[in-house]
Amino acid sequence: MNIRFANRVTSAPRSFTRKILDLTKDTSVISFAGGLPDVTLFPHELIKSELDHILQADNKTIYQYSPASGVVELREELAKGYQNSNAEEILLTNGSQQGLDLICKAFINEGDAIVVESPSYLAALNLFALYNPDIIEVKLSANGVDTEQLEEIFKTKKPKFFYAIPTFQNPTGWSWDQKTREEVARLAKKYDIIIIQDGPYDALRYEGENPIGFDTLLPEQTVNLGTFSKTLVPDFRIGWMRANKDLISVFKGLKESTDLQSSKVFQYVAANILKKGKLPAHIAKIKATYKTKRDTMVKALNEHFGSIIDLEIPQGGMFLWIKFPDDIDTMKMFDAAVKENVAYVPGSVFFRDQGISSYARLNYTNATLDEIKTGIKSLKKAYQTYTSK
Amino acid sequence: MNIRFANRVTSAPRSFTRKILDLTKDTSVISFAGGLPDVTLFPHELIKSELDHILQADNKTIYQYSPASGVVELREELAKGYQNSNAEEILLTNGSQQGLDLICKAFINEGDAIVVESPSYLAALNLFALYNPDIIEVKLSANGVDTEQLEEIFKTKKPKFFYAIPTFQNPTGWSWDQKTREEVARLAKKYDIIIIQDGPYDALRYEGENPIGFDTLLPEQTVNLGTFSKTLVPDFRIGWMRANKDLISVFKGLKESTDLQSSKVFQYVAANILKKGKLPAHIAKIKATYKTKRDTMVKALNEHFGSIIDLEIPQGGMFLWIKFPDDIDTMKMFDAAVKENVAYVPGSVFFRDQGISSYARLNYTNATLDEIKTGIKSLKKAYQTYTSK
Repeated sequence: MNIRFANRVTSAPRSFTRKILDLTKDTSVISFAGGLPDVTLFPHELIKSELDHILQADNKTIYQYSPASGVVELREELAKGYQNSNAEEILLTNGSQQGLDLICKAFINEGDAIVVESPSYLAALNLFALYNPDIIEVKLSANGVDTEQLEEIFKTKKPKFFYAIPTFQNPTGWSWDQKTREEVARLAKKYDIIIIQDGPYDALRYEGENPIGFDTLLPEQTVNLGTFSKTLVPDFRIGWMRANKDLISVFKGLKESTDLQSSKVFQYVAANILKKGKLPAHIAKIKATYKTKRDTMVKALNEHFGSIIDLEIPQGGMFLWIKFPDDIDTMKMFDAAVKENVAYVPGSVFFRDQGISSYARLNYTNATLDEIKTGIKSLKKAYQTYTSK
Repeated sequence: MNIRFANRVTSAPRSFTRKILDLTKDTSVISFAGGLPDVTLFPHELIKSELDHILQADNKTIYQYSPASGVVELREELAKGYQNSNAEEILLTNGSQQGLDLICKAFINEGDAIVVESPSYLAALNLFALYNPDIIEVKLSANGVDTEQLEEIFKTKKPKFFYAIPTFQNPTGWSWDQKTREEVARLAKKYDIIIIQDGPYDALRYEGENPIGFDTLLPEQTVNLGTFSKTLVPDFRIGWMRANKDLISVFKGLKESTDLQSSKVFQYVAANILKKGKLPAHIAKIKATYKTKRDTMVKALNEHFGSIIDLEIPQGGMFLWIKFPDDIDTMKMFDAAVKENVAYVPGSVFFRDQGISSYARLNYTNATLDEIKTGIKSLKKAYQTYTSK
């Protein structure tokens, strides 16, 4: 039969991620390509003991249908992470990715302008594209976005929202400085623009202090997205949105239409872990491990590449964003890398216009220290093969 | 600030369900309004023992990110429920409601025609409305849809799909007979229309035999939706889609963009329960209980209302669909019912055009036998109060 798909399907950009994941199923490949947390750090025993506790409790309705907003005990705990917030300002979602989908549903009419950092999170770009907006990029540097360019966009395009990952950004690992945040808040207020602050890596700071977030600078106009995928485990599929309660009420209605509700069992587990104050010690362990991995990768990169590459060392997160000389196309170099059994994500996929080809995103959290050393050595070989052609 | 929502939000129909749920939070109200399974039948011990088994196994990656399609062991088991199917034809979703959202994403451009039964499942109607299609209703009777009207719609409107719940439909409890199914399959083939067969109540047949489904009659053009919400527990949030593998591949891409993946833990639990053959005995227990509840409600209705109401007794499912005399408006009678501490869903909300006002949907699975007897008695009082005005 002739299947008549919607335009959003037929015009969807080809997913390069899928290609990478397929290629790197081969276990002999050391992959710096994904964005996976270190599986050896998952707190199996902590989870199991809370799970037993919850399922032993005489909670007969735990498996019944329940409201779309999610378990109130967890929403109360999460609200404590924001200034002057409360459970009514929190909606639990199926990972923070679902939060992005609900935001698209809430705001985007076909052709509406929205703003993203350039580069930005690939899976957000792919999702946004399904709603056919006019996606406008604002240039990101190591200290934050270009606020002059942003003001011009706000003024002339009246975007529905600005989607930003101000701390340890994906793909760059970069963080906006305090001055940039304050200027962006001022502009958003002046031009009446919603800020979507995605914060999956906020808790993974190894050094320094987190700047003040938009939930404090401009709470009424900000939607915060959070997740346990990087601090507990991805499979909980627990993300959350924080926004003023009128916005949350709209998101909740859309959540209900989309999949009724998320599962409560692991929401209770997460709530208990937070209530008992067990998360900070676990996160400290994650950060210590990731810091060592970051340092190992930076050292190996310096050793093998020296001044060939440019690199800003981020104070946390999960990624390094390295720049090869301008004439290097990391997409073309990718095959050489896979031949050397190492994988990364070519930087161009994170740009809407895909014009910039000399970057690569390297994830260091999922590989062992030995794999990091071997992998960077292999990457150098791939670089030599590629450039000697 | 002035929040500029998308049109789909500002034009969304007011959710009556929400109003009902709010009203019936009052525990003195006997509610026949929801669609909740009987919480006393939930297999807590069975779930706990499989959960322990799975989490004791040395499965270090169970909590890691994983492919959008879901756990293969469960997809293999589910494929056995369809003719000549396999794991590649199954996608696991966050409840079958998410399947509906992915179907909308895959097929609906604004203004596209789609067909639904009249009446149909309220949460599907609300979801579809977010995609701004032209929703066309085809009349449903106790033996199935009006196939002449359907052919006219297929011919003139070229709908993207026909969304149907052919077995123990929500809200009516009615089932299409075999002849109707075959004729609909013939028409769908002739006019190249996708059939969405939603089957949440298929397993809840107390009497008779299930007719042949569209997965057998027209597998290439059918998308089946299934769920464990009625046979195990709603909070698993495990639904599935069955379709040919090219369609599944599109749905999987959309699932990945929407929320990356669903949680695997309860997918493994469900897979083990199926593999060990423990589901049929559990479902037998559910059916025996629900049959008694149905019979109790039918008896009470006959006793108190006699020939005042019309009712087709369904051979399974979770609902009775009763028709009061034509001049009764069950929406207006609802307040009188709540005053008597009993709730139902007024039939008009299940019709797109809301023209038909004399029906009510009664759920009998969530109340005890005593509550059913008391509740129907109260409903009669409400009817008398309402008609004596």
